[in-house]
Amino acid sequence: MDPKSKSRRELLKGGAAAVGAVAASASVSKIAFAQTPASGALPSYAENEAPMIPLTDDLIGYGVRSHYVTSKRIPSTTGYAISPDEFGLSFHVATPLQDSIGTIQASSLHYTATTKKTFIPDIDPAKHTLMIDGLVDRPRIFTMADLKRFPSVTRFHFIECNSNSAAPTDKTVQQTHGLTSNAEWTGVLLSTLFKEVGIKKEASWFVAEGAEEEKGASTIPMLKGMTDVIVAYGMNGEALRPQNGFPVRLIVPGFEGIFNTKWVRHIKAVDQYQLNMNDYGHLNRTALGAAMIYQIGPKSVITFPSGGQKLPDHGWYEITGLAWSGQAAVKNVEVSTDNGKTWHIAELKNTPHPMAHVRFGYMWNWDGGEHVILSRTTDAIGQVQPSREQLAKALGVEFTPQYRPPGNNNTIMKWKIASDGSVTNGLA
Amino acid sequence: MDPKSKSRRELLKGGAAAVGAVAASASVSKIAFAQTPASGALPSYAENEAPMIPLTDDLIGYGVRSHYVTSKRIPSTTGYAISPDEFGLSFHVATPLQDSIGTIQASSLHYTATTKKTFIPDIDPAKHTLMIDGLVDRPRIFTMADLKRFPSVTRFHFIECNSNSAAPTDKTVQQTHGLTSNAEWTGVLLSTLFKEVGIKKEASWFVAEGAEEEKGASTIPMLKGMTDVIVAYGMNGEALRPQNGFPVRLIVPGFEGIFNTKWVRHIKAVDQYQLNMNDYGHLNRTALGAAMIYQIGPKSVITFPSGGQKLPDHGWYEITGLAWSGQAAVKNVEVSTDNGKTWHIAELKNTPHPMAHVRFGYMWNWDGGEHVILSRTTDAIGQVQPSREQLAKALGVEFTPQYRPPGNNNTIMKWKIASDGSVTNGLA
Repeated sequence: MDPKSKSRRELLKGGAAAVGAVAASASVSKIAFAQTPASGALPSYAENEAPMIPLTDDLIGYGVRSHYVTSKRIPSTTGYAISPDEFGLSFHVATPLQDSIGTIQASSLHYTATTKKTFIPDIDPAKHTLMIDGLVDRPRIFTMADLKRFPSVTRFHFIECNSNSAAPTDKTVQQTHGLTSNAEWTGVLLSTLFKEVGIKKEASWFVAEGAEEEKGASTIPMLKGMTDVIVAYGMNGEALRPQNGFPVRLIVPGFEGIFNTKWVRHIKAVDQYQLNMNDYGHLNRTALGAAMIYQIGPKSVITFPSGGQKLPDHGWYEITGLAWSGQAAVKNVEVSTDNGKTWHIAELKNTPHPMAHVRFGYMWNWDGGEHVILSRTTDAIGQVQPSREQLAKALGVEFTPQYRPPGNNNTIMKWKIASDGSVTNGLA
Repeated sequence: MDPKSKSRRELLKGGAAAVGAVAASASVSKIAFAQTPASGALPSYAENEAPMIPLTDDLIGYGVRSHYVTSKRIPSTTGYAISPDEFGLSFHVATPLQDSIGTIQASSLHYTATTKKTFIPDIDPAKHTLMIDGLVDRPRIFTMADLKRFPSVTRFHFIECNSNSAAPTDKTVQQTHGLTSNAEWTGVLLSTLFKEVGIKKEASWFVAEGAEEEKGASTIPMLKGMTDVIVAYGMNGEALRPQNGFPVRLIVPGFEGIFNTKWVRHIKAVDQYQLNMNDYGHLNRTALGAAMIYQIGPKSVITFPSGGQKLPDHGWYEITGLAWSGQAAVKNVEVSTDNGKTWHIAELKNTPHPMAHVRFGYMWNWDGGEHVILSRTTDAIGQVQPSREQLAKALGVEFTPQYRPPGNNNTIMKWKIASDGSVTNGLA
């Protein structure tokens, strides 16, 4: 397989000799890991060649992940499912937050929620158009090429399904919080297109419709459309994926996921709130009330250690997770390792952007005892993520260990660490 | 395929009626596209159902891109190729910058350069270790689990091959500049590990070796190792890809790509510069001289419109591209559409981070005439990207249209736009 292995072995032989002194040195670690390997042992492939992956034209053109990495999305246990009798099954798949690294989700792992369980649109971008009409001066139909001629924006934003909630019965963070994801989105501001078509002064709302069966329509305040909504064709450096709305979708920063219309094809400026297929969560509310609850509250969750994981031994770990708010950037994140008695300011790993995930970390020396660990977020406009007890009190309902807040649940998540290092849902 | 298409068609029928008024409206565009579609035409799928993609378990677990998106990496024409007689063929594949969107490259499209043309290491992360020894107090061997217990950092950085250069004979931006890519990297700072093992005061350099045949070794100043080098296991929100060093690599921000050792397994603190397989570009230079030229200069390139693309008609376009510096963040980018006679400050689309790509944009109303378009970067420490003429003068060599600067070529790139809208390399 490798005609040059001789020279490589010679190189390694030299390397092995050079590091021979290691064996005689004491191994003293400042962060004492119980599993510290015996000093002086050479990396395994120093004597055994690492296996090789043959490169094909396909792999050269578009690389894939290692076969050792098997992290995947799973059907959500908390996703809203429209009755199969009436509208067909829903497709809600949660991102594996327990394996998440950094601040964005790879496009292949970004959560998806849509109406149909088994099919998504297969749209030819050369034929796709976006029509903007209604209460406008110059109704227009934009091709994808048209959209790309306008000035672009590139921004980090999370999207979260309204149903992304922590239930005491869920076992993993993928199940409790996997219906939120963060990505770098590129597109044209909807406000740019609205200025192009000329919005009439009586247009106070707009309706966005996607090529998504019964579900893809939402009514959104015009103020939001004139602020930061993106008509996005790019995601994480390449074209959108079909499961995330290829060739174009709305990004409505901080609003419930369902408003981020995928496969968007029609936007209509209107003068009143319009009930539609997306209003299951907003029925019996006023238009103003509906608009006000669109925005995801300040929220955070610890992704490591989290349910189903196990700490191998006592000692130092970085407790890490994600924090976000639907109304501002994250200001700070606090972590508690004693069930909320004391709190510590966590380190933010990236620049907080408005309506985007922030990765936080807090170094913790686990003593091997039982602990309940928590995180809570304060956003830049001063809102603090509440506990379930606080929310129940605010809503005037009796709190029980099984309490699951209604709607957009941004309450504090708890993970319980047992003395054997195993981690379980700490809510119940 | 879709039992609910009846209700969908009814919905669409209502939509069609609602937008009937469009046909009677005048289509007046503020940004006049010649290809503005006829007002009143409905989106194509309003009457014809969009085809559907059936979702399999694999697609639900880990999504893929649309079959309409075929952007891919190609073998580099400018990559350094070690003589096949001596060391085997090299593997240099360039990212398709002409299709790039936003600021990062998707991991599947990130450029790769390594020694062997047809194989890359297939490393089991459970067996992989990183040894740090040499002039240290406490030599250590770290497992991947060990590395993940240290405090993490998440940062955007570009990597660029030293050979990434614009030649007058290259046709596309993928060929001229495709050996640079930008990603979100997550890992532990090398300085954290160095503090863990205790660097002796006489250690002024370190050598990093990867599991990469003959090539994977570099000598890097200890000052750099104590500053911002990352031992990275995460990339764009998931584990590194095999082609980018899975399970762990060095990120040496701003230094030539070859120092960003992939599949890193051994780091040795030493007291002098060590010549090794990576020094082809630095032979006959002093240690200090070698260290000084490691850093990529301030650089930029227009990715749209670029060679091989064609503007469909005169009118407004966003000239867009990427800018970076190996020694600081980007301060600003200027664009010229008259071969450098006049310059305009471009809009930066994302927050400039040190040693990371910035996306820039400049709106331009193309008059249909012949133009040569250019971009140039100034970084935060005041360095300005030079023209080829300026560099030739500084180096004391005679400039010719075919002049190709040696080594790390950060000179200004030109694209020529013909009156038919076709774009070609404007250097010659």
